[in-house]
Amino acid sequence: MVDFDTHPDRYRHWRLDIDGEVATVSLAVDEQGGLVPGYDLKMNSYDLGVDIELYDAAQRLRFEHPEVKAVVMTGGLDRMFCAGANIRMLAQSSHGWKVNFCKFTNETRNGIEDATEHSGQTWIAAVNGTAAGGGYELALACDEIVLIDDGSSTVSLPEVPLLGVLPGTGGLTRVVDKRHVRKDRADLFATRSEGYRGDTAVQWGLVDATVPKRDWGAEIARRAHAAAARSTRSGDRGVELTALQRREEGDTVSYPFVTATLDRDARRVDLTVEGPKEGPPADAAAAREQGVDYWPLAVTRALDDLVLRLRTNEPELGTWVIRTVGDTDLVLAYDQQLRSLEGDWFVNEVNHFYKRLLKRLDVTSRSLVAVIEPGSCFAGVLLELALACDRQYMLEGVYEDVDPDADPATIALTASNDGRFPMGNGLSRLASRFWGHDDDLELARKLLDERLDARAADEAGLVTMALDDLDLEDELRIVLEERASLSPDALTGMEANHRFVGPETLETKIFGRLTAWQNWIFVRPNASGPDGALRRYGSGQRGDYDYGRV
Amino acid sequence: MVDFDTHPDRYRHWRLDIDGEVATVSLAVDEQGGLVPGYDLKMNSYDLGVDIELYDAAQRLRFEHPEVKAVVMTGGLDRMFCAGANIRMLAQSSHGWKVNFCKFTNETRNGIEDATEHSGQTWIAAVNGTAAGGGYELALACDEIVLIDDGSSTVSLPEVPLLGVLPGTGGLTRVVDKRHVRKDRADLFATRSEGYRGDTAVQWGLVDATVPKRDWGAEIARRAHAAAARSTRSGDRGVELTALQRREEGDTVSYPFVTATLDRDARRVDLTVEGPKEGPPADAAAAREQGVDYWPLAVTRALDDLVLRLRTNEPELGTWVIRTVGDTDLVLAYDQQLRSLEGDWFVNEVNHFYKRLLKRLDVTSRSLVAVIEPGSCFAGVLLELALACDRQYMLEGVYEDVDPDADPATIALTASNDGRFPMGNGLSRLASRFWGHDDDLELARKLLDERLDARAADEAGLVTMALDDLDLEDELRIVLEERASLSPDALTGMEANHRFVGPETLETKIFGRLTAWQNWIFVRPNASGPDGALRRYGSGQRGDYDYGRV
Repeated sequence: MVDFDTHPDRYRHWRLDIDGEVATVSLAVDEQGGLVPGYDLKMNSYDLGVDIELYDAAQRLRFEHPEVKAVVMTGGLDRMFCAGANIRMLAQSSHGWKVNFCKFTNETRNGIEDATEHSGQTWIAAVNGTAAGGGYELALACDEIVLIDDGSSTVSLPEVPLLGVLPGTGGLTRVVDKRHVRKDRADLFATRSEGYRGDTAVQWGLVDATVPKRDWGAEIARRAHAAAARSTRSGDRGVELTALQRREEGDTVSYPFVTATLDRDARRVDLTVEGPKEGPPADAAAAREQGVDYWPLAVTRALDDLVLRLRTNEPELGTWVIRTVGDTDLVLAYDQQLRSLEGDWFVNEVNHFYKRLLKRLDVTSRSLVAVIEPGSCFAGVLLELALACDRQYMLEGVYEDVDPDADPATIALTASNDGRFPMGNGLSRLASRFWGHDDDLELARKLLDERLDARAADEAGLVTMALDDLDLEDELRIVLEERASLSPDALTGMEANHRFVGPETLETKIFGRLTAWQNWIFVRPNASGPDGALRRYGSGQRGDYDYGRV
Repeated sequence: MVDFDTHPDRYRHWRLDIDGEVATVSLAVDEQGGLVPGYDLKMNSYDLGVDIELYDAAQRLRFEHPEVKAVVMTGGLDRMFCAGANIRMLAQSSHGWKVNFCKFTNETRNGIEDATEHSGQTWIAAVNGTAAGGGYELALACDEIVLIDDGSSTVSLPEVPLLGVLPGTGGLTRVVDKRHVRKDRADLFATRSEGYRGDTAVQWGLVDATVPKRDWGAEIARRAHAAAARSTRSGDRGVELTALQRREEGDTVSYPFVTATLDRDARRVDLTVEGPKEGPPADAAAAREQGVDYWPLAVTRALDDLVLRLRTNEPELGTWVIRTVGDTDLVLAYDQQLRSLEGDWFVNEVNHFYKRLLKRLDVTSRSLVAVIEPGSCFAGVLLELALACDRQYMLEGVYEDVDPDADPATIALTASNDGRFPMGNGLSRLASRFWGHDDDLELARKLLDERLDARAADEAGLVTMALDDLDLEDELRIVLEERASLSPDALTGMEANHRFVGPETLETKIFGRLTAWQNWIFVRPNASGPDGALRRYGSGQRGDYDYGRV
């Protein structure tokens, strides 16, 4: 059981130092601190446990440190920035573990870029020594890359020549699509295990600058303060991310406002999000005062933790059924506040955290089904959860044998659904839904802030099916049984293709094309077979390849 | 050894009928006509051999039939359009065969769309019976899909529920990104093996219309003639695609203007394209008169055949080294003519065929290296071959020990390199090369029509390296040896990511994301293991799945 909770006091691999407007996160991996037995984390190589700490640090910097406007990422070992993912860990891991590990590290790197872009926290890679493979990919997620000029340290992507796999945590994509390295040079770079340094590294765009040792500290500080000076981030007192209140009882995991029930026989999770119990706080200061108890943050933290835990620990639970329960008016009041107070640093952070959570759902390899019933509160921000699902089933009328007097379910679109929580492809989930049908999108926009019953929601194209109680129960039973019977691989590929219609971005290219190729390569004998390059790494023997091109 | 030459007289599976401006291609697969033993092609299912004929028909329609302005694709069996790729064929095929087969079928389908868009030949799918899986994907490549309303015929994508793989020949992508089917409906569709028909199929956008049997012939004819009436295609007499003059002697394959030498020990192909022997014909009529001997067409046909044969028959030859030899002035004269006569239907077809050939190179899973030496003629259209390569090596000066008096190599950019042969991502290879560096692109544009020696080419960023003769020989030897030693899977994934920087399109999404996911799924035990769904298909037993999500 992998846990994603941690705290700077318990970090084994990273150190987080705050000095006014500049934070420094230093990587000094504890070789004996691997998450699972079987490998030593030498040369600042990492496993999932190392990245969990980095994720925690990035989250805390955003919520607990409004004063921090630049973040320097550096290596805490001499002449070593980071050697990338630990190869023995990869070699001994199951295919599923490798893929899920890469997904999480990708999300963490995207989060670093998100902080730079949306929080006024600019990350700078101070590459104080070798940055190889995943180590260079970490640097690539930063806004600037500065390489020490010590006559030996290089940046490199040695995966293809040494390991027979890709630099799959964004590396290939960021080199050409973010750093705009010319593609024939990218080809040279990605096949040259020793990497590049010096003028070549700068001219090609692999790094922004090289700096002699004697100037190192001053130049990094100069860059950090220059980035900080450009930041519009404001706020003095942070919001502490206190320990999550998670309870696990049998097959139920619950948090304030979020409950999940694991049905192993049906290979399903039933997940319920509760609306707020009362109206939103009066203003931004009051919201900050509530801190982690501020309803949107509490829901986001709980869902984020739940998604990560289920993805990592419960791969066989292939379908997640999402419900909400609560008062739509109260949800809408919060929904309104998240927009009206977006200028506040804290509310801004909550908005972007929720955005990142939704993106995590989008790239989650589970079938997602929303069920909209009486008592639910799928409005605005919470409707976004339904729109993230592969299908939406809505009850028309009420469950006659449960509560014949209930109010039939309604949903409500708000401005929150119209671009405030973009998917990785840059589109809102609403625009993705109506891709190619601008007329339907325009019609939906006319319905903002209206309560739509099942018939209206169906007519507007916002739900997959609106059914009465007898039909819905039958349909859901059949659908969920059927879904659980299908090939999980085929479903994963299908969902990844359907969810991202329309345009592509750096982010979707990483999760789509790059990841899909990497997954294919991971599972091939040339990498992971008994004589494959990953398995033989460190043995002194190269991989024994089948040279047939596919 | 798979051969791609065929002729309507020898078709076993398709029939090509021309009636004035409308052609009809009818599929009636010969069950016993499989390309390799081991399966019967029942229910109009197809293998590579069936698609080779379709490719041939599409090519002949464009070159031999300028009068044809609409093409009706229909099934030649009763109540059966096409059941898709033959499952037993897939089940018995190696991974490499499956992947290469899908690539070719994808290219053929893209070619159908290309004919509709660029040749004024609009393809219409007259779905006269069941269109399942790859059968529906064939229809998706057409501009219109008309489904017979006979009370039973449906369109469907049953791959996920029945086979545990994806509709990977463009199906998933075209449903949402071309036909704009709402993604939750696409999810329903792709998990429902029986498919849809009637009003639902029309309302969701799966087909354009359903037509009762009694009106069938008249309605299809009406649509074909309406499409023809919109066409701007002109020309009365076609150019016959006579048999290719291919010679194979030992490890050398040669055509007029193209020679390939296969070096199995080095796992390499050395490929040389010859420039024209004399200047271009006087005008379009004279070019048509030359027909298949028109130099650009002769080169394109030869390269197209060579690429297909090498991809299918020589998977272990992982690196292709491309050279040219000839007179740059003559190449430039043809280059100019291909532009000035583009309004002629025949020259238009030559241009678009060359474009498609280049796209085939872009998605070829081989390392491509251009070597630019004295005597070469990499100018305009031929420079495009070098720009399609992963790397370009150019000799600075001459080979002192071979011909010290030779003229050093030059290259020349022309307007042909600036958007006339777009890649699948919609960019020219020049713009892809300088992606993110608009200044470099603008500088290159200032060099159009100039002869650039190695130093100038290097400064303009048009070659990877310019080296003198001793260095070039050493460098090439090392590079080619090294390339041949790397994991072919990792190289394939790397090249696929580097080649397509920047924007994505329907086409790149099909070859990138969809194909990569499909390749991954193909190789997983849930599909191709002894108890996988593909292997068990037809046995009455479902696949025995590992239900872990990855």
